[in-house]
Amino acid sequence: MNNENKFSVNPSTNKKFLIPDDIDDRVNIENFINKNSNKKIVVVQGLGFVGAVMSLVCANSIKEDYAVIGVDLPNKENFWKIETINEGVFPLEAEDKKIDSFFQKSIDKGNFYATYDPYAYSLADVIIVDINLDVKKNSVKNNILDSYDVDLSSFKAAISSIGDHCNEDTLILVETTVPPGTCMEVVKPIIKKKYQERGFDTKNIKIGHSYERVMPGPNYIDSIQNYPRVFSGINDKSVEASKKFLETIINTKEYPLTLLNGTNATEMAKVLENSYRAMNIAFIVEWSRFAEKSNVDLYKVVNAIRQRSTHSNMMLPGIGVGGYCLTKDPLLASWSKQEMFHDEPLTMSEEAVKINDQMPYFAFEFFKNQYLKSLSEKNVLFLGVSYRGDVGDTRFSPVELIYDLFIKDGAKVYLHDPIVSFWEEKNIKVENYISKLLKNKIDVIVITTGHSAYKNDEIVKLIMKKTSLTIYDTIGLLNQKQIKLLKTKHNLFVLGRGDN
Amino acid sequence: MNNENKFSVNPSTNKKFLIPDDIDDRVNIENFINKNSNKKIVVVQGLGFVGAVMSLVCANSIKEDYAVIGVDLPNKENFWKIETINEGVFPLEAEDKKIDSFFQKSIDKGNFYATYDPYAYSLADVIIVDINLDVKKNSVKNNILDSYDVDLSSFKAAISSIGDHCNEDTLILVETTVPPGTCMEVVKPIIKKKYQERGFDTKNIKIGHSYERVMPGPNYIDSIQNYPRVFSGINDKSVEASKKFLETIINTKEYPLTLLNGTNATEMAKVLENSYRAMNIAFIVEWSRFAEKSNVDLYKVVNAIRQRSTHSNMMLPGIGVGGYCLTKDPLLASWSKQEMFHDEPLTMSEEAVKINDQMPYFAFEFFKNQYLKSLSEKNVLFLGVSYRGDVGDTRFSPVELIYDLFIKDGAKVYLHDPIVSFWEEKNIKVENYISKLLKNKIDVIVITTGHSAYKNDEIVKLIMKKTSLTIYDTIGLLNQKQIKLLKTKHNLFVLGRGDN
Repeated sequence: MNNENKFSVNPSTNKKFLIPDDIDDRVNIENFINKNSNKKIVVVQGLGFVGAVMSLVCANSIKEDYAVIGVDLPNKENFWKIETINEGVFPLEAEDKKIDSFFQKSIDKGNFYATYDPYAYSLADVIIVDINLDVKKNSVKNNILDSYDVDLSSFKAAISSIGDHCNEDTLILVETTVPPGTCMEVVKPIIKKKYQERGFDTKNIKIGHSYERVMPGPNYIDSIQNYPRVFSGINDKSVEASKKFLETIINTKEYPLTLLNGTNATEMAKVLENSYRAMNIAFIVEWSRFAEKSNVDLYKVVNAIRQRSTHSNMMLPGIGVGGYCLTKDPLLASWSKQEMFHDEPLTMSEEAVKINDQMPYFAFEFFKNQYLKSLSEKNVLFLGVSYRGDVGDTRFSPVELIYDLFIKDGAKVYLHDPIVSFWEEKNIKVENYISKLLKNKIDVIVITTGHSAYKNDEIVKLIMKKTSLTIYDTIGLLNQKQIKLLKTKHNLFVLGRGDN
Repeated sequence: MNNENKFSVNPSTNKKFLIPDDIDDRVNIENFINKNSNKKIVVVQGLGFVGAVMSLVCANSIKEDYAVIGVDLPNKENFWKIETINEGVFPLEAEDKKIDSFFQKSIDKGNFYATYDPYAYSLADVIIVDINLDVKKNSVKNNILDSYDVDLSSFKAAISSIGDHCNEDTLILVETTVPPGTCMEVVKPIIKKKYQERGFDTKNIKIGHSYERVMPGPNYIDSIQNYPRVFSGINDKSVEASKKFLETIINTKEYPLTLLNGTNATEMAKVLENSYRAMNIAFIVEWSRFAEKSNVDLYKVVNAIRQRSTHSNMMLPGIGVGGYCLTKDPLLASWSKQEMFHDEPLTMSEEAVKINDQMPYFAFEFFKNQYLKSLSEKNVLFLGVSYRGDVGDTRFSPVELIYDLFIKDGAKVYLHDPIVSFWEEKNIKVENYISKLLKNKIDVIVITTGHSAYKNDEIVKLIMKKTSLTIYDTIGLLNQKQIKLLKTKHNLFVLGRGDN
């Protein structure tokens, strides 16, 4: 291990944590359990955007008094999360106030502990699998998807680790988005083998699948606790145990559970759900180009169409689709269809990802066709770096590609975001105060993320004080009144609008 | 004109009408007008699925007492409609009771007349264009779309005919689904030229566009009268006149009008609306194959996903998309983008049509993979020939291709439909009474259309009386209880379900 890899750093605070060589945390775990005697134990595997918040929801169960142990790996990427939680700081910056109050309550109750020691699994009544399963994309110029691959090795290792330590009666509830077929073809065989090795009765294996619909943002907690849930199990026992557990963390009175017949079905539901969304975004891309060509305001057209209940979910034009799910789930599905079921790929769903990946490039092209001048040495201000309005998540943000394209053309780009203060993927600081940035000479302002903070007239007022510049709205954020005012002084154009 | 072309035949009644050589109907028209003096005159051009019903809505305006003249061509396809209306019979078989009562009221009031004489346009305050604008598809084996073309010549001729006769003050309201750009690039130049030739002031030209969202079926009238409307005009005068007129035929109090900026925008809205629908149908096709392969019931999965309001419009698997609109509108749009705006095609929207066209073929393939036996000499009963449940419209019905494939494989196919008694496109009689057909020896029953009549248990009871046969549900019409019962005796499988 080289020196740099000895530490895991909290990217928000820059605080460094020394990664232990020895993964024995048994004393602390038992200490925690002793303080929480008589409580059922929930272990959450993975402390990312889902697992960390899922831990809070379990620690604040609506029906049970659980002791919750979050487990992650003692490596550079994850170890700081474990230590940060145990120091009393939640590892995610979130706009949902419930996050803070849930975390504070868990501290007061002393029922949430984080560790890297898989020994925790041996104490669990329920283990929730919330680790990531990534798709490796190989893209060529302008982000065109060329090929992709799914590597199950770390997922398999995580399941094996559970199988090595869990009890015979533990419920393993998979929440990770997986290629359909994974619970039956990957998880079950691994656990079965471990049960046999450990002399457990394989009839007692309980594996459930219930995918999360977590939406980072102002309703983070509610997107788990107050949201419809689909679930399944590999057998009746698994279904029963999963149901019983889910009823303790989800408000099933208002949001009744939906049982599907088998884990293939729930696994497919999750990736289909996200592929549908990705497809509907991709669909509108070529219509944006059409609107731009034919002097049509596509935002108005789509809003007119949305009045029909059968068309209420049509997407608006935009800079691109980001986040962790929509950019990969269609590929997970297509990979499964090919590799697990030896069938043709999901061509349309793959095509949707391919188109969406290129959206920031199309947005840049439209800019260049309107702006005409060289970008070299121009001062450009980006409003927003996260992938979605009012969300502090920059993973796979479409802003990344358009940022790269502006930089490549010689622009100097200032970054603003009201929530994100550090852009991890680009390793750049992001300014939270817009007035500070507007003190600079600015040639171009690009509205890149739909944060609520950008929708009020204060920012328009600030921009009206600047000398004439170019404003490019890539997401149709500005309203008609704002556009009219800004146009009295500035040059302005909107993606997906030909009537600029 | 050969002898056959001298007559126009009502396909429902087989009644023949001699097509006149002389197109002068002036006396009758003036007679009609004299009986309706002091009324404003609305002329509807085209008496098809939209124009005929639109005429009724105008004749029963919620605010004005209009005299309505329906105009169609004195040819084989259309002349019978004109004569049938004037004989007091409505030319469409419709499941909406309002159709009969609206038609009866117009007879009582004497304010609806049909003619083939364009002289009618000269009397019109408003002319509504409701003629068809078709796409010519060139498809190869298994209905794969190879190329297509849009021929505007008859549309142009119809507009010219209006321009030759209309008044200087007439509002021309286009309802026909047209390639975006048509009102500005085709209609306006034709009318302008005619105005100039006739010495009219071209400033007085009034052309509006307001597309219909007519849905044949039990809510036929309401899909015009009680439904949101989008409209536009080529100038302020046109907008004002269109608005004023639409307010007299649509319940705009409950369904306020939406004005878009220019006819390009409303023309695009219509084809985008239908392309969205076509796309969402095409999207689910490959997932049906995935579900079949992976033992998943896709109907259940989709219903579970639909609980999310953002996903409520996901489509269910099915035999195919039919009807007049979804099968061509994406192509009209793509044609416009290429021919009128000299841009790339709408690739995804074209692809959606291409996939949907093949759905009946996929449905047949799935059948063959499950049935395994030869179809030669087998007695097959199709339940439903129309393109959609509870609708008597067989235009572009997906049942047509799967019917052809069964026939080609040597099957003898009996046809049932509770609404359609004659399948125009195939020139075949269709039986309305299922018990009659079930007296035959039946080897295979294929559920092809989602008519409500097929959803009750009576039909299941009748089928249970038959000796063991194969049932193929191509649209997920049967419920779990019915499936369970039928399976006790018969062989049954459902498209889009792998857990058969």
